[in-house]
Amino acid sequence: MGIVRVGVAYMKLKVTVLGINAGDKSIVVLNDEDAEELGVRSLGRVSVSLGKKELVAVLNTSKHVVKKGFVGVFDELVEELNLKENTLVNVTAAEFPSSIQYIKSKINGRKLKYEEILEIVKDVVAGRLSRVEITAFVTSLHNFGIDVDEAARLSRAMYETGERLNLNNAYIVDKHSIGGVPGDKTTLLLVPIIAACGVTIPKTSSRAITSAGGTADRAEVLMPVNLNLDEMRLVVKKTNGCIVWGGTLKLAPADDIFIQIEYPLSIDPMLMPSIMSKKKAVGAEYLIIDIPCGRGTKVKTIGEADTLAKDFIELGSRMGINVQCAITYGEQPLGYTIGPALEAKEALEVIMRKKNVPDVLDKVRNLSRMLLEMIGKDGKNMVDKVFKSGEAEKKLREIIFEQGGDSEIKPEDIEIGKYGMDIHAERNGHVIWINNHRIAIIARAAGAPKDKGAGIQLYKKIGDSVERGKRLFTIYAEKAGKLKRAKQVLEEEEVIYVGDRREMVAYEVKKTSDVKPSNS
Amino acid sequence: MGIVRVGVAYMKLKVTVLGINAGDKSIVVLNDEDAEELGVRSLGRVSVSLGKKELVAVLNTSKHVVKKGFVGVFDELVEELNLKENTLVNVTAAEFPSSIQYIKSKINGRKLKYEEILEIVKDVVAGRLSRVEITAFVTSLHNFGIDVDEAARLSRAMYETGERLNLNNAYIVDKHSIGGVPGDKTTLLLVPIIAACGVTIPKTSSRAITSAGGTADRAEVLMPVNLNLDEMRLVVKKTNGCIVWGGTLKLAPADDIFIQIEYPLSIDPMLMPSIMSKKKAVGAEYLIIDIPCGRGTKVKTIGEADTLAKDFIELGSRMGINVQCAITYGEQPLGYTIGPALEAKEALEVIMRKKNVPDVLDKVRNLSRMLLEMIGKDGKNMVDKVFKSGEAEKKLREIIFEQGGDSEIKPEDIEIGKYGMDIHAERNGHVIWINNHRIAIIARAAGAPKDKGAGIQLYKKIGDSVERGKRLFTIYAEKAGKLKRAKQVLEEEEVIYVGDRREMVAYEVKKTSDVKPSNS
Repeated sequence: MGIVRVGVAYMKLKVTVLGINAGDKSIVVLNDEDAEELGVRSLGRVSVSLGKKELVAVLNTSKHVVKKGFVGVFDELVEELNLKENTLVNVTAAEFPSSIQYIKSKINGRKLKYEEILEIVKDVVAGRLSRVEITAFVTSLHNFGIDVDEAARLSRAMYETGERLNLNNAYIVDKHSIGGVPGDKTTLLLVPIIAACGVTIPKTSSRAITSAGGTADRAEVLMPVNLNLDEMRLVVKKTNGCIVWGGTLKLAPADDIFIQIEYPLSIDPMLMPSIMSKKKAVGAEYLIIDIPCGRGTKVKTIGEADTLAKDFIELGSRMGINVQCAITYGEQPLGYTIGPALEAKEALEVIMRKKNVPDVLDKVRNLSRMLLEMIGKDGKNMVDKVFKSGEAEKKLREIIFEQGGDSEIKPEDIEIGKYGMDIHAERNGHVIWINNHRIAIIARAAGAPKDKGAGIQLYKKIGDSVERGKRLFTIYAEKAGKLKRAKQVLEEEEVIYVGDRREMVAYEVKKTSDVKPSNS
Repeated sequence: MGIVRVGVAYMKLKVTVLGINAGDKSIVVLNDEDAEELGVRSLGRVSVSLGKKELVAVLNTSKHVVKKGFVGVFDELVEELNLKENTLVNVTAAEFPSSIQYIKSKINGRKLKYEEILEIVKDVVAGRLSRVEITAFVTSLHNFGIDVDEAARLSRAMYETGERLNLNNAYIVDKHSIGGVPGDKTTLLLVPIIAACGVTIPKTSSRAITSAGGTADRAEVLMPVNLNLDEMRLVVKKTNGCIVWGGTLKLAPADDIFIQIEYPLSIDPMLMPSIMSKKKAVGAEYLIIDIPCGRGTKVKTIGEADTLAKDFIELGSRMGINVQCAITYGEQPLGYTIGPALEAKEALEVIMRKKNVPDVLDKVRNLSRMLLEMIGKDGKNMVDKVFKSGEAEKKLREIIFEQGGDSEIKPEDIEIGKYGMDIHAERNGHVIWINNHRIAIIARAAGAPKDKGAGIQLYKKIGDSVERGKRLFTIYAEKAGKLKRAKQVLEEEEVIYVGDRREMVAYEVKKTSDVKPSNS
């Protein structure tokens, strides 16, 4: 598609290099009066040309910073047109990209065709749309709700505009958790188990956004995770599996941009396409999706989880991916550790059969079994076999080695923050609930996930009996100052509630709270 | 409301002055790694403090431009905290303003209470919300539709956060057109007529956005319109009326920000609150709203116009403003001129009774009559009397004088662009339609509204019989280059269609157009 100039007025303007990179790819700033002369308003489009090169940029206007006769340009444009201070360029009004028409259709409630969605996603990736336009699109998807048709079209468009792994292995399987459970180290165990069974699992993971650690953060304690697509392919070819960070692979680059909009609004209309496009990009044919359910997770009730699961399965079938979902218990952290190093250590101890952590083992075993059963294998026995024989541990060490880590690593080699603080029970009773969200906040305050050794070691979980004065958990930090901050955060709100089992009133609602921060 | 720090981590960072003003009031840029350390993502909030001064800003992140240990600041923050290059400031994560909770409620389809809307509008005016958040709010208002309750709450909130005229006159009346008709010079005639009848009409008008001229642009040919609120009050006290530009009066400052979002999305959910808040701010008790109806205007059908009119009347009654609406014919330009100078000249000739322009006179007389009847006067006779006696002309000259213009101005003093080009009919027939939107585009290409003398003089209007070779219209421009451009634009699409009266097929739809720019 060529650049469509509106052609009402042209101006020759001098370049002012603004020296800033806005994240948005192409922004230019004009003086208010020049913009008026061109007949373009802020967030309209202008074409900037030098010689034969021409680019369309989003316009911002300014009264003072950019003087009449000048055009302020951000870094991306400086590079692409090879501009210098005072270079003379031609500036003219350009038409909005045609994808804006489709965004307007969506704003007005229309269901979009595949070609329309593809055009929008292409322009998002190319930086041709302003934040206002992308936000209107994302908000409208949320407001009207996306059905499986649109989810499938979005998934395909996000996949078509990204990179691909291109493996030719027989069965390619994958696993994804929609998240929300602190301390979920399932992937660190599931990947080597599946790979040890001879099945290919090219796993990409994310880093923490608001949690105390994503799988990529945990895995990084054991091995490098910043691999590129070629390196990832090589590891998978050698070991059947990998655990790498998906952030720089550009498997679905539109997703990274949509997330920037969704995060501050706490909405997630792209949940399904975001996951499925990336799974398609690694070539997954069999996929298990973990939907943790409970207070503090994304999905609060079994009913909601069930609906979501069915949508995932339907979407999968349209994309040629065989999907099954596991709705899992998400009311409390998984295992006894939260924070990258503590979790990596616990995972290593479990896979080495040094420690028996029942909930971790149960989840890992069942999800692995389901995946293997999907491809017609005797999942339960295979999992037990590779786990008990030590083949799973051996496979993890192979993966660590191929990704560039120390394959001889022992649990005691993993450094935990040297500053610790014990929290004791103030009464006798049982653990009635654990606030997942506060656990994450405290671990973050202590430095996780950036300080890998920071986190929380739990001693008691829901239902456990507790004695006054005994330890409930320990907070670890790498820096004394951060431990102090974690202590302050700890004092703001209860994190583990110890009470009597017969207590029936959870919370008293007395009046509408005007400002109630949402954790959803 | 104090600043709520999330308090997980503090950093001492050095200031990098970025030298740019983004329109958004408070933006800071951090290096990705520092942002991660603080636990804040792009578009999250950080508090920046120096000594006792503390401000909350919206965060942008960057990989390269801002180095680790530095915080890049935009101009507004530099001024407010009195920062210099390398000043050490404290940076920490801050909570999102509470109004974001209400925006999230709206995104999830909830109807908002007045206090919630007020909080949002306050934060919009204070620059505490990011473009993403404001866009999500505006888009959701559009998607869910605003009812009269919310329109009333928004109107009140926008009025409460703005300036007020505070007149104590007996009857204060006002007039507003929702626009869309090129060449609509009604206000230039209506204001002096009403004022000459002894009734107060403190009229504020807008400049053109996408049209060839707003009322403020037209009026500026006759007199200065950039008055402040005190100057405006003085003119009204002396003459009963005024025609000033509303753009700098800050009668509803939130509206200026909402418009920046609405314009690129071609949505207008704030249509009613935007108008009504400003009318309330000048103290209007009686208001007539002109709803032009036809192709190329905002409202396409009489049915839509009727619904909108009833909503305006209901909204008015809740705000203590007596509203009546006139649904007017909007299929073609009003009068024979488009462009500031041409229109001002035509208006002056009409009010001086030198020229009889039937559609202009009919509209002005009827709208004036309606306004006067609303306050119990014999509108028809009063309008005829002040018009025929020359009192209306005298009143216009008084207003021109008080606003600082030449009260002796004659039509022939008004300069029209010296470059002209006649467009002739290519066949015999009748004018079947005139494309309002193309008329505006051509006039803009010729230089309007910035070049006041640029525009279009029509000789034929809808239904007029046309002879081959006779002039249909003339395009005027102040600069030869712009006339040439107008000619190019003219050739792209038909603007005045001459045909036979019996022609029944308007347009043939053959297949879905993939890229159809919308003019709505």
